[in-house]
Amino acid sequence: MALRKKVCEELIRERSQASFSVKEMTQLLDGSEQKTQRRKELEDMFFNDLELKDEVPWDYCSHSEVYENAIRKSLYIFNKSMELSDPREALTIAEAIMHEASPVSVHFVMFIPALMGHATEDQQTMWLGPALEMKILGTYAQTELGHGTFIRGLETTATYDPQTEEFIINTPTLSSVKWWPGGLGKTANHAIVVAQLYTKGKCYGIHPFMVQLRSMEDHQPIKGITVGEIGPKMGMRASDNGFLKLDNVRIPRTNMLMKNAQVTKDGVYVKPKSDKLNYGTMVFVRVILIDMVAINLARACTIAIRYSAVRRQSELIPGEKEAQILSYQAQQYKLFPLIALSHALKANFMALMDIYKNATQDLERGDLGMLPELHSLTSGLKALSTEIGSQAIESCRLACGGHGYLLISGLPRLYASTVAACTYEGENTVLYLQVARYLLKCLKGQQQLAPESMVRYLLDESFRSPFNKSSDVTDVDWLISLYRAVAYRQVHQAAERIKELMEKNRPEVAWNMSQVDLIKGAKAHIMYCVLSIYVQWIKEKQCSAALKTVLMRLCHVYLLWNILENPVPFGLVGMTDDDQKQMRNVIYSRLAELRPDAVALVDAFDFHDLVLNSALGCYDGQVYERMYEWAQNAPLNKSQVHESYYKHLQPFIKSKM
Amino acid sequence: MALRKKVCEELIRERSQASFSVKEMTQLLDGSEQKTQRRKELEDMFFNDLELKDEVPWDYCSHSEVYENAIRKSLYIFNKSMELSDPREALTIAEAIMHEASPVSVHFVMFIPALMGHATEDQQTMWLGPALEMKILGTYAQTELGHGTFIRGLETTATYDPQTEEFIINTPTLSSVKWWPGGLGKTANHAIVVAQLYTKGKCYGIHPFMVQLRSMEDHQPIKGITVGEIGPKMGMRASDNGFLKLDNVRIPRTNMLMKNAQVTKDGVYVKPKSDKLNYGTMVFVRVILIDMVAINLARACTIAIRYSAVRRQSELIPGEKEAQILSYQAQQYKLFPLIALSHALKANFMALMDIYKNATQDLERGDLGMLPELHSLTSGLKALSTEIGSQAIESCRLACGGHGYLLISGLPRLYASTVAACTYEGENTVLYLQVARYLLKCLKGQQQLAPESMVRYLLDESFRSPFNKSSDVTDVDWLISLYRAVAYRQVHQAAERIKELMEKNRPEVAWNMSQVDLIKGAKAHIMYCVLSIYVQWIKEKQCSAALKTVLMRLCHVYLLWNILENPVPFGLVGMTDDDQKQMRNVIYSRLAELRPDAVALVDAFDFHDLVLNSALGCYDGQVYERMYEWAQNAPLNKSQVHESYYKHLQPFIKSKM
Repeated sequence: MALRKKVCEELIRERSQASFSVKEMTQLLDGSEQKTQRRKELEDMFFNDLELKDEVPWDYCSHSEVYENAIRKSLYIFNKSMELSDPREALTIAEAIMHEASPVSVHFVMFIPALMGHATEDQQTMWLGPALEMKILGTYAQTELGHGTFIRGLETTATYDPQTEEFIINTPTLSSVKWWPGGLGKTANHAIVVAQLYTKGKCYGIHPFMVQLRSMEDHQPIKGITVGEIGPKMGMRASDNGFLKLDNVRIPRTNMLMKNAQVTKDGVYVKPKSDKLNYGTMVFVRVILIDMVAINLARACTIAIRYSAVRRQSELIPGEKEAQILSYQAQQYKLFPLIALSHALKANFMALMDIYKNATQDLERGDLGMLPELHSLTSGLKALSTEIGSQAIESCRLACGGHGYLLISGLPRLYASTVAACTYEGENTVLYLQVARYLLKCLKGQQQLAPESMVRYLLDESFRSPFNKSSDVTDVDWLISLYRAVAYRQVHQAAERIKELMEKNRPEVAWNMSQVDLIKGAKAHIMYCVLSIYVQWIKEKQCSAALKTVLMRLCHVYLLWNILENPVPFGLVGMTDDDQKQMRNVIYSRLAELRPDAVALVDAFDFHDLVLNSALGCYDGQVYERMYEWAQNAPLNKSQVHESYYKHLQPFIKSKM
Repeated sequence: MALRKKVCEELIRERSQASFSVKEMTQLLDGSEQKTQRRKELEDMFFNDLELKDEVPWDYCSHSEVYENAIRKSLYIFNKSMELSDPREALTIAEAIMHEASPVSVHFVMFIPALMGHATEDQQTMWLGPALEMKILGTYAQTELGHGTFIRGLETTATYDPQTEEFIINTPTLSSVKWWPGGLGKTANHAIVVAQLYTKGKCYGIHPFMVQLRSMEDHQPIKGITVGEIGPKMGMRASDNGFLKLDNVRIPRTNMLMKNAQVTKDGVYVKPKSDKLNYGTMVFVRVILIDMVAINLARACTIAIRYSAVRRQSELIPGEKEAQILSYQAQQYKLFPLIALSHALKANFMALMDIYKNATQDLERGDLGMLPELHSLTSGLKALSTEIGSQAIESCRLACGGHGYLLISGLPRLYASTVAACTYEGENTVLYLQVARYLLKCLKGQQQLAPESMVRYLLDESFRSPFNKSSDVTDVDWLISLYRAVAYRQVHQAAERIKELMEKNRPEVAWNMSQVDLIKGAKAHIMYCVLSIYVQWIKEKQCSAALKTVLMRLCHVYLLWNILENPVPFGLVGMTDDDQKQMRNVIYSRLAELRPDAVALVDAFDFHDLVLNSALGCYDGQVYERMYEWAQNAPLNKSQVHESYYKHLQPFIKSKM
């Protein structure tokens, strides 16, 4: 579909202007020269494999065809990855090839990790081995028609019957029908079902149970199981998200995943050592999501910047050739800050992955000290990155004008996959409120803070306003102190509101009456953390002076843009009219400085054309050629005259004559 | 698909709490009691017609099936509308039934109006009559692969050949291929093609020409014509947007639409009386788009508010039943301002329609006085309403959590149709810059202003800051003066920047270096206009005190919310920390006051369930029942085991055993 053509003259010229080495930047983003090299080897191995190429864009296929193609490819990639010394190396490649999620994503991202986290050694022997070999295909069935983020409210029950030493799994109401799990519709033959555990007449809250859904012989649903797909979604077409009704399905007692809590043969409930053990997987998945957003945004930026270098519109200077839209200030102001945002998210992903690894080691030593802050930070970052990241992708799409509305631009797909994460894995509003709850606990001194905690500034009155010293809008550190001051103010403001309201209301009511302020406080805090980590990352990276200059310039643009474009009351911390004017002047100069580097900056993300899968964003810039070629495959173009003409249009027109 | 069920108890209770008459509000929004009655008669006539009901949701059909269904229904609705005394009454109904645009939308919205505006009387006899009867099916082919909003850059040529008295229509390059016109792909047999007119070796700019595309006998493309669809889009699936390549197609001279400019037999070009005559249709279409956004937003609010009243999540008070999510402050803050926005846009649509009608009468009398301001106002309003309206619809969708991501929620479709208008009919950024150009002309005194002009405040220094008098955040008029002051400052700020830059740069370069500030100025001005008109509308409406109270309360919420949530520097006009705190306190109280009226407010939009076409938003609130029922029709649920199991999954699993 995307055979490389001769590179267009606009992109040749753009690339010749770069002030830094694209290769160096690619290696920096990959982590090292070795990592870049290995990535390229894997890409060669998979992307040149004819079995993995699509003859027709998925956008032109029916839901059923997309699903079948996705199953075929997923299994093929799996077999191929088994030839690698470390099959996990293929995970990133698989994500890049599948475009619209895969029917087996949840198998790898949730089913297997949940087995690792919750199954005993015996249970792992029974299920984890086969799952890793894909002999059994699993999903993770938690969310119900009527219950999402508030998991304590789940209605599915697992009632222990000591007579037969079985659990009876049941969805007693319509609202308790499991709804949403990926791969549940048509693919999975097993599920880890999350249900309220009842034994000896008492409920012990939610626990995970292994339930076989379909026969291993013929894939037919097992007695008592009603299963199917929930229908098409905005995006992620290849994932067969499903529903699951369980009518008193009996499973052996030993199908309860018992690494943490247990139920004995005679029905005695044995508590887990710590509730916090369950956080691990949740934290991990959220860290992964931050990277997903960083990558999808980088893809969208690549498409939009390359297209903007090729697309010409209006006369910048009367009488001259129409200008590349990348040369308009308005277009630069839309797009350059978004490249920076993708760097910021990538830097945060890398930093959090390190913190996560350390915390996991601590955890294994029984030290849960960093866990509350890590949990709060990843919840907030998941919410903020999916919220602003998906908006950023949609901005890239809109910056491509009408052509961005075509599915073959690749941009609607990127938006749809990313925005989905605003509501899955914890709804964003609920997550912000969780962060706020944590911050308030810290303010009240109810939470012990580690020495490296990023929350300490909230306890230091001197961070209240940064305008005491002489302000310098060209100083990145000073700008960060501005973000910190705003976070300080917003969090304290929310805390004060609650305190006032509690004088006349119950705490829960005061909390509800302060939700909007709490969310603003949480967002301001998370934004401060994200940007601190971003600046730190640039400062610490060892790289050439030329590269460091461009990275810092871009970062500077984002820090200013975000102040000027976001409804955060920077005025409240003392920002004046004159400060703003200076900020505007500085950002407009920086945009002009970055203009010659724009294409190189997105080239450095180094996405293969097959991954971008965009008629607007290919490396060669042959936009119109590709659009015209790809359109020839559109479904209605199979014949000159559509069949409906003979059925409807022709008789209608004849009747008028 | 949406048979009415027993209304759920939550909605019964909500409806019993309303402080105003829903019926009165419906009539107010429709325009009068008679209009409401007539609308309901038409709805009964069309919505109870079994021919117009879908057995399976469109979301579950292939592109080809959607197209065929749309053609069938469009023709059926047309025939049925011919039985009405005024067939145009069916237009709104048709829009409501079609959901995803229609292959004949452009025929009615652009082809016919263009004939009215550009064809001579003889030409109207030849084409307008048949078009009104749908004997010929047309489209309007202006945009090209490489050329959109900047229409002077179009490359298609119409070269006059006096020998044969024909025009030769040609698309000389790939980038000149016509691209995007709705209905062009498979439906239209005629097109008005916009091309650069050449006669006697000279180019006279773009003009409209009638070109037959397909045989009236068998619908095959005519010699020299290559035509097809451009492929699927984010939304508007029923519209077969197309491409058109013209290889030196010859048409008679009399196929040039000659009401305004002409070319005589011997090739002499006769200029039109005024360039501005062409503005009429453009202005009209933009006014219609504002209503489209108002309606789509009202639909999204209806779905989101009803769902929020039914959906329960988390415990507001520990130990009590899970709370309706509508009771959370965060949810109210997300949704209530958006109901207000839909009122604001509806009010602006009605006001602009009146101005448009007056201007058209003036125009016919040769008075073009109001045209420049009307053109600027409608350009700006089109941009602002599509931008903030589509964001608002997406907020409604996200406020429904995960379920909003399902196509059967009806929300992705509403977003996709609305956001399309950000880039069609004039790309928004370009439109904002046009508004800015007009405002700067006014500032410089180069534009005569009518007495009723809404731009006059820009010339009055006293509007610079409203904080001179005692501020009152509960006073709607004072809040409007705040918006005016911000607009004043932003527009003047941009003007000053350009002036400074012009000392060292060419005017065009200074303009480009000020684009971001210019856009901000234009947006602030348009926002001020929108909100003034909105407040005026509420004040002038004759209605009960109870209704007026709730309308004003909602308006107040929007005025405050928009200050608190938008990156407009209200601080620059003197707003203090304390003002903001007051604003927050007031808006939170208003939200609580509006809570009992929320469902009634959206009921008053009075959308038929078939129009909402949403499993989450039906009048009866039976959300989970309908989701579960509808899902049974999803494409992969046609069989228990998908065919790909036998082809791929079964052999794969067996190979592992």
